[in-house]
Amino acid sequence: MIYNAGVYDVAVIGLGHAGCEAALATARLGLKTVAFAINLDSIALMPCNPAIGGPAKTNLVREIDALGGQMAINTDLTLIQERTLNTSKGPAVRALRAQSDKKRYQFNMKYTLEKQENLDIKQAEVVDIEVEDGQVKSVITKTGARYLCKSCIVTTGTYLRGRIIIGDVSYSGGPNGLFPANELSKCFERLNIRLMRFKTGTPARVDKKSINFDAMEIQPGDDKITPFSYMHDEINVEQIPCWLTYTNEKTHEVIMRNIDRSPLYSGEIKGVGPRYCPSIEDKVVKFPDKLRHQLFIEPEGRDTNEMYVQGMSSSMPEDVQIEFLRTIKGLENVKVMRPGYAIEYDCIDPTQLKQSLELKTISGLFFAGQVNGTSGYEEAAAQGLMAGINAAMKHYNREPFILDRSEAYIGVLIDDLVTKGTNEPYRMLTSRAEYRLILRQDNADFRLTEKGRQIGLVDDERYNRFLMKKAQYEKEMERLKNTMITPSHDVNEYLKSKGSSPIVTGITMYDLLKRPEIDYVSSKVIDSGRPDDIRDDVAFQIDINIKYEGYIKKQMEQVEKFKALENKKIPSWINYDDIKGISIEARQKLKSIMPTSVGQASRISGVSPADISVILIYLQSRR
Amino acid sequence: MIYNAGVYDVAVIGLGHAGCEAALATARLGLKTVAFAINLDSIALMPCNPAIGGPAKTNLVREIDALGGQMAINTDLTLIQERTLNTSKGPAVRALRAQSDKKRYQFNMKYTLEKQENLDIKQAEVVDIEVEDGQVKSVITKTGARYLCKSCIVTTGTYLRGRIIIGDVSYSGGPNGLFPANELSKCFERLNIRLMRFKTGTPARVDKKSINFDAMEIQPGDDKITPFSYMHDEINVEQIPCWLTYTNEKTHEVIMRNIDRSPLYSGEIKGVGPRYCPSIEDKVVKFPDKLRHQLFIEPEGRDTNEMYVQGMSSSMPEDVQIEFLRTIKGLENVKVMRPGYAIEYDCIDPTQLKQSLELKTISGLFFAGQVNGTSGYEEAAAQGLMAGINAAMKHYNREPFILDRSEAYIGVLIDDLVTKGTNEPYRMLTSRAEYRLILRQDNADFRLTEKGRQIGLVDDERYNRFLMKKAQYEKEMERLKNTMITPSHDVNEYLKSKGSSPIVTGITMYDLLKRPEIDYVSSKVIDSGRPDDIRDDVAFQIDINIKYEGYIKKQMEQVEKFKALENKKIPSWINYDDIKGISIEARQKLKSIMPTSVGQASRISGVSPADISVILIYLQSRR
Repeated sequence: MIYNAGVYDVAVIGLGHAGCEAALATARLGLKTVAFAINLDSIALMPCNPAIGGPAKTNLVREIDALGGQMAINTDLTLIQERTLNTSKGPAVRALRAQSDKKRYQFNMKYTLEKQENLDIKQAEVVDIEVEDGQVKSVITKTGARYLCKSCIVTTGTYLRGRIIIGDVSYSGGPNGLFPANELSKCFERLNIRLMRFKTGTPARVDKKSINFDAMEIQPGDDKITPFSYMHDEINVEQIPCWLTYTNEKTHEVIMRNIDRSPLYSGEIKGVGPRYCPSIEDKVVKFPDKLRHQLFIEPEGRDTNEMYVQGMSSSMPEDVQIEFLRTIKGLENVKVMRPGYAIEYDCIDPTQLKQSLELKTISGLFFAGQVNGTSGYEEAAAQGLMAGINAAMKHYNREPFILDRSEAYIGVLIDDLVTKGTNEPYRMLTSRAEYRLILRQDNADFRLTEKGRQIGLVDDERYNRFLMKKAQYEKEMERLKNTMITPSHDVNEYLKSKGSSPIVTGITMYDLLKRPEIDYVSSKVIDSGRPDDIRDDVAFQIDINIKYEGYIKKQMEQVEKFKALENKKIPSWINYDDIKGISIEARQKLKSIMPTSVGQASRISGVSPADISVILIYLQSRR
Repeated sequence: MIYNAGVYDVAVIGLGHAGCEAALATARLGLKTVAFAINLDSIALMPCNPAIGGPAKTNLVREIDALGGQMAINTDLTLIQERTLNTSKGPAVRALRAQSDKKRYQFNMKYTLEKQENLDIKQAEVVDIEVEDGQVKSVITKTGARYLCKSCIVTTGTYLRGRIIIGDVSYSGGPNGLFPANELSKCFERLNIRLMRFKTGTPARVDKKSINFDAMEIQPGDDKITPFSYMHDEINVEQIPCWLTYTNEKTHEVIMRNIDRSPLYSGEIKGVGPRYCPSIEDKVVKFPDKLRHQLFIEPEGRDTNEMYVQGMSSSMPEDVQIEFLRTIKGLENVKVMRPGYAIEYDCIDPTQLKQSLELKTISGLFFAGQVNGTSGYEEAAAQGLMAGINAAMKHYNREPFILDRSEAYIGVLIDDLVTKGTNEPYRMLTSRAEYRLILRQDNADFRLTEKGRQIGLVDDERYNRFLMKKAQYEKEMERLKNTMITPSHDVNEYLKSKGSSPIVTGITMYDLLKRPEIDYVSSKVIDSGRPDDIRDDVAFQIDINIKYEGYIKKQMEQVEKFKALENKKIPSWINYDDIKGISIEARQKLKSIMPTSVGQASRISGVSPADISVILIYLQSRR
């Protein structure tokens, strides 16, 4: 029996990283929101690695933060270690990685949701979405509750028809021993939504007591933790180390000897796995010449002995997993607490979505996260936030909130998904961003806080923090341009100490800072007018923006060109069948993707520059 | 494929409250132990109320503590409120109740297990137990791991063929949205173990934000928290209140109007439910004259908005649950976060067990907790500890560790189970204990610490604490007997202030304390030789033991008589078919239960005093 359980503006199905951001965003934007999890204790679960961040992903997390999302704040509040990555490389690829206390991450996020006004969270499996005249009307749970809603955001992660595979053992199940969602896929099939079957995997969790850390290399945290969130000035917590070790030829021998028992190679696994998070058996088979693979042993929390074996994802039989783990230095006597496993699940072909993450064919039906074919907590959270924002924009009859590829990694992510689609779990990489020198993790607030403010997610506290930081930055840049350094013994001594050539005539401090060997902080000794209160993050901005000024300017010119095509909008009434001269493949793809701009059209695989020219001419003639 | 995963002394199947105590006990007693949970995140889960203690249950918890178990310590470390119950009643029924932070309780216990030497914990579903020549040989997991073991302790709680029922919705599932264990029952059937089908239930969890607490009565914690564990002197934490409210006629009307939709009354639920934790529909149907039922609204933790509605357990359809909850004062706008549900599960007939909790027919196979037909975390933990101890005693070829009914509530619990069996979930009550005046919660350390020491579970720290407390008690009792109070103005003024008659001749302090109106602490003013350092708990012992001296002495005489029959052992070679003159029913029951003493035989239902006389004569003739 179905009963009416309530009337909401938005229903969010699933409360992983995408669902949490989506639900918080809609509730904070004033929409009456109901959000469902199959198990409330699995909210914000990290079923795989106990870490947030890494290259490109850090940028996503900081963009989420700048727009008023929750992931960065929650990471800062619950981390147990942090490292800055790629410090020796350029600023475009620099990143943070935080080791999280998994349980604290979860329960802190759960409590954040619980306290949020306009948001009701419920333990329930949603089994159906009701659609009337192409518009979402309601969702229905297993216990017969119908929730009326104007929009629905699907954030089901890997739960849809989830199947766990460990060697020759397989069974219906969600991540981490939780129930799967077996009903909702049928609803999607009925709604003519194209599904795909992906898989992902996770390594064993092992017992700290059984590890010989003396045989491994310690990986301590940074001396000073850099917060993920722009809301935090500093984080002072005791850090817990990770440990570095390697596979070896013996490890690889065990894997190859048992390769016929791998469900990946036996054909048992049919779902497509993530290219950039391959299982260890995949790595060994595909790179037979590699003598070793790097592994990190990472704590799953502050108060647990469970350790994550980063780099050893596997769906091999349990006995094989134990055998190959024990070939590794330091793991000779390791005890497995949870075996690694693969999980196959249903996801949708994301080219069925608009840039707003709303389904093209059903008004009010949004999708975000792993169900869109992505991989990673950060990719999920970014989509969740955007789906939430766009459900709210729709509710208020405002324009969809779209970030383009020159504005944010979030823009790259969503444009890639809806324009190119994906035939394997999609992971964000710096190489996917054409304009990565300007889409740095350190300047996400400069890029996006104003936008977040316009949306309504950036509160006064965040906005004022940003305005003060921006004012300090601008004032100091101005001062540096107007500060003349004249040759003197002290100045040239300083330059010498930095291995820099002496000056013989006056030079602005700004120009001096263009020298790669001169950094803003140390140059204070020759810059007597320097204010004392310049923030670390402002100093960092100054250094980067002065030193990379030329490159940044060049990239901004490319962005201009890019924007020209992005701004050539393709009206929704376009009929590609009317346009002569485009290839059959292009016509099919364009009709399916329905790009909103000439720029987006040009990125569709199978649409050639010649096709674009024809479209441009057609559009001009119709103006 | 099955592979050999390891060789252990003991395997523990399930890590709820019974499994945790069992695994810790065997590991601490030096046995190589492996313990399994279907999900490691469900270790020490409290699937029902967020509280430890209450009448009779407090006694169990303190007995567990005195013997070296973990429940009391873990409760003290994670509680968020405590109340002393029945302070106006006699000391036999006095009790503590702690509100627990469920998640902290769980993860603190998990970490305790993880750190325990000799103990390996694994996420796995045990699907089979292999028995050879009537002796346990190994357990096998779903992923094909065979663990050789000499003993196996089954602590599966409500997971065995678990089925969740909410109105007309029912599905296979364990407690709290976890996977059930569907395989192990088949193994038990193959091993000719008689199974029963019980059910239990839990109320809805509701959203704190949606409750009007102004309409309820606040229930704060005690000013001073009394620790559960004898290892703790004091507990200083901020306490969180509970709230009192009531059902009313409207609530009852909603239930009765929907009673045909109750799975309890429609026949959908076949399992037998707990008499002392009935569902609200059961209470309303069985007590139609009662105009209201008391309810407590209890927080599920410190950092969550989930609230438990104590007293409203229900398996009615979700819409009915919401409708009746909203009739309650303060819950008019309540929002349900998790609906109440009933769970049906397989348990065993506990009369198949020896007093040691070992199965009579299979050597090394122990059962403890809800799988033995009990209800309650404390009952489960007590059995788990005893099964663990007895697996260890067996390992070391020592005598089984049996507590009789005069020694501990644990003795009453286990004797009831194995002698009388149970046809409904068994809950510990003070009324079940014949000698409850001596089995007080306050003296469990005096009763059991020495025994725990002999077993090997009481470490030096605990033992020394106990010896010091005991020495202080004995010395002070001796001093009180030898301290003569002579009439004086001050003495008689004090007595007058207490409403007590003046003395005219000398009297010992000991005799003066027999007066009900005179308490040990306040009488310090007339007892100049009183040491300053008497502990609160010693003062409490002194008061009770002096005031109740007469009753205690009488009860000790009853215990003597009881012990006489308990000490008349019935040898295991007895053949009841040889004994003429006992009734057919008694013969059948005696052959099935195989009591180890005449005392135990006398408690079997259907065995009459006449039958006992015949047995006594028979045993005498055979001596």
